Amino acid sequence: MPKVDLQAIPQTNATGYPAHLADVVQQRWYRRLSPATGLTDFGASHVVLKPGAWSAQRHWHECEDELLVIIAGTAVLVDDTGRTPLVAGDVAAFPKNDGNGHCLVNESDADCVFLVIGKSVNGPCHYPDVDMRELGGGDKRRKDGTPFSR
Amino acid sequence: MPKVDLQAIPQTNATGYPAHLADVVQQRWYRRLSPATGLTDFGASHVVLKPGAWSAQRHWHECEDELLVIIAGTAVLVDDTGRTPLVAGDVAAFPKNDGNGHCLVNESDADCVFLVIGKSVNGPCHYPDVDMRELGGGDKRRKDGTPFSR
Repeated sequence: MPKVDLQAIPQTNATGYPAHLADVVQQRWYRRLSPATGLTDFGASHVVLKPGAWSAQRHWHECEDELLVIIAGTAVLVDDTGRTPLVAGDVAAFPKNDGNGHCLVNESDADCVFLVIGKSVNGPCHYPDVDMRELGGGDKRRKDGTPFSR
Repeated sequence: MPKVDLQAIPQTNATGYPAHLADVVQQRWYRRLSPATGLTDFGASHVVLKPGAWSAQRHWHECEDELLVIIAGTAVLVDDTGRTPLVAGDVAAFPKNDGNGHCLVNESDADCVFLVIGKSVNGPCHYPDVDMRELGGGDKRRKDGTPFSR
């Protein structure tokens, strides 16, 4: 059945961030659609940002394009150019290696739901606002290269 | 600016189908988002199906996963399992080489808007209901291999 039964896919708020940077994504609830549906060409996540939640720490990927579309609710896109309101139907694209850190913040009182597409396996990722970088494959460290003690 | 200015991207109803199979997609208006936004990892199209329009002749790809999300309006997903209504927020996934021909049909009186993700360049594609197959790279022929005269 091509229609995806979203309710049948486990929803998680798991994060690889160290605890002191994870508060903002604790109410980011997502479902990974590709493993559940047999897709391998790209990764896709169905994300619910509860009021106050961020999609991520502001970041940019060296090697992965990202694309998202707002399905319901509103969010503020924060990037180097400032703050951009997004509403249902809005699309945002983040070309790899553009050096423009971005994230969504749900500043409303209602859930924000969006679909985001990217590669399934991440390479290096940069976080301009916090002392973290990702070397790839989920290996997140301080900017001086030392590991977090979690 | 990561937010995509959809109105600034040309909308087209172009099709590679031969004229006698193209009627159903004449009111399928789409914008190719990846070239417009600098994404290369995958293709993405923002599609408006006017009332009565189909997303495509029913088809399945040998080599490309597809994923779509309904942004507004409704459509009927037609595939080997039957007819499945889709509404805003619904997601459908079509793993490559699944042999399950699919298309969307807008049977409503309002526009149906959806976002669809796939590879930018298509390989072989099969059309179970009509005398057409695609060898790849847009080369569509009759099932006996003869070219269409267009």
